[in-house]
Amino acid sequence: MNEQNTHRIRIDLAYDGTPYHGWATQPGLPTVQEAVEAGLATILRQAVNVTVAGRTDAGVHAANQVIHCDVEQTQWQNLMGNRRTRPPEQALVSKLNGVLARQAGAIRILAAEVVPQGFDARFSPISRQYRYRINNGTPDPLTRHFTYQHRRPLSFETMADEIADIQGFYDFGSFCKPRAGATTLRTLHRFDLDVTQECVNVWLAADAFCHHMVRALVGALVQVGDGTRPQGWLQERLANPVRDSHMMLAPALGLILDSVTYPSYDEVTKRAQQTRAKRAPTCWSCD
Amino acid sequence: MNEQNTHRIRIDLAYDGTPYHGWATQPGLPTVQEAVEAGLATILRQAVNVTVAGRTDAGVHAANQVIHCDVEQTQWQNLMGNRRTRPPEQALVSKLNGVLARQAGAIRILAAEVVPQGFDARFSPISRQYRYRINNGTPDPLTRHFTYQHRRPLSFETMADEIADIQGFYDFGSFCKPRAGATTLRTLHRFDLDVTQECVNVWLAADAFCHHMVRALVGALVQVGDGTRPQGWLQERLANPVRDSHMMLAPALGLILDSVTYPSYDEVTKRAQQTRAKRAPTCWSCD
Repeated sequence: MNEQNTHRIRIDLAYDGTPYHGWATQPGLPTVQEAVEAGLATILRQAVNVTVAGRTDAGVHAANQVIHCDVEQTQWQNLMGNRRTRPPEQALVSKLNGVLARQAGAIRILAAEVVPQGFDARFSPISRQYRYRINNGTPDPLTRHFTYQHRRPLSFETMADEIADIQGFYDFGSFCKPRAGATTLRTLHRFDLDVTQECVNVWLAADAFCHHMVRALVGALVQVGDGTRPQGWLQERLANPVRDSHMMLAPALGLILDSVTYPSYDEVTKRAQQTRAKRAPTCWSCD
Repeated sequence: MNEQNTHRIRIDLAYDGTPYHGWATQPGLPTVQEAVEAGLATILRQAVNVTVAGRTDAGVHAANQVIHCDVEQTQWQNLMGNRRTRPPEQALVSKLNGVLARQAGAIRILAAEVVPQGFDARFSPISRQYRYRINNGTPDPLTRHFTYQHRRPLSFETMADEIADIQGFYDFGSFCKPRAGATTLRTLHRFDLDVTQECVNVWLAADAFCHHMVRALVGALVQVGDGTRPQGWLQERLANPVRDSHMMLAPALGLILDSVTYPSYDEVTKRAQQTRAKRAPTCWSCD
């Protein structure tokens, strides 16, 4: 595809990860990527490959995921139809939601826009924010698909104390699935929790996360919260960044990709180049 | 079954109505009643018929539903097993949740207790409270099974005004599926709404509700909220209690039976007798 004949399109979407084997296409299994790419192919009448901000594991959800793809200018204009009553952005959202109706509401397209060619859903982000929902009370049938039910009593105060000072630049080697040659250095912008009537939300934001990093951090935090591990356990593991058998992953179903933040569109190209240089080519799973 | 050889048991439970064709047993269809009665039969080794506080339609959920059933004293004691490490109430909750695990978490037993023989889950309640969830913003894939998505813009202020003065004793004939000989007089204890970040909750409580009454009231309220009907429409329909073609039922999936309130156990027998005299025998569907 010739760059000069295409528009780069950013699409924001939300999904319930329950019915899917994660984001990334896997032969013979239903995935979010496969559903979205098939939907785009239907409405654009061209094969479409999308690039995603955060590859989510099986069972993980998204309140606001971001993807980009390149669409031929002719196809883009064709989206408006003969009557040209609405701009292509609006037509794409509406038509894509239409064809995704067969996903029974599990995937929802929120917005679409033309962005600079340098915009890269995966390499341009400044920050990704995740939310992890924990229920420590009576199991709730209505929220069971997106809330982790922890049976042993948790001290939310202990948990809040445990993470109060964890912010900034660390080697997360103790909390990452290792990949040869890939760095495990990340900058954590946020790690805190709030307690609502319905659940405990653990919030994490970072420039990027290694594979399994959010679930490993929450898993360790829960172990401190229920007394399985002593207070200070997370700091200790951060000080000794070695992946070992201690790691417990919090279940995927409690995890929601909350938002992805990009620099202004003037800055995105620069940002993508910097990130690519720092993390590629080995860290394909580290978003 | 001889009353003297049985215990009357009250069971509180929650469920996600999505996978079921409502509460009441229907041949060949999955229902909550059928699943619960089958579970009780398995753990008690006797056939069990349960009576429910609020028969919910297909797709309607319950945060706290109440049922009663009669259990032979021998079977009740047997629940404890040979080691008798826990009381039968606790054993029932735990074992019933165990056999209901095959419902994939959609039904959760919250509590069980022995109550006076005069307790009747259906006829003893003082009040039933329902919550109706409406989303008027971006559709949310995670809450889609228990939130009604209304497309046209709603004025929550207009809706709150509309119901501000609706409380007390009315003939709800305009909002009830008619049954020959059954009264449509009810006392509404609560009808208000609150707006959260996630949705609008409409709350309704009454001594009892006729069939479809909650969904018909919410349906009418939504029509006022989006301007399809003029303000004052609900009062007008209450003043002229005739069921007609104007009625729009709000979709079942947004409705949650929130709680059922009973009088003190000293009073329940009296209350059940009074209610039965007032409503039975024709109003089988009016809970």
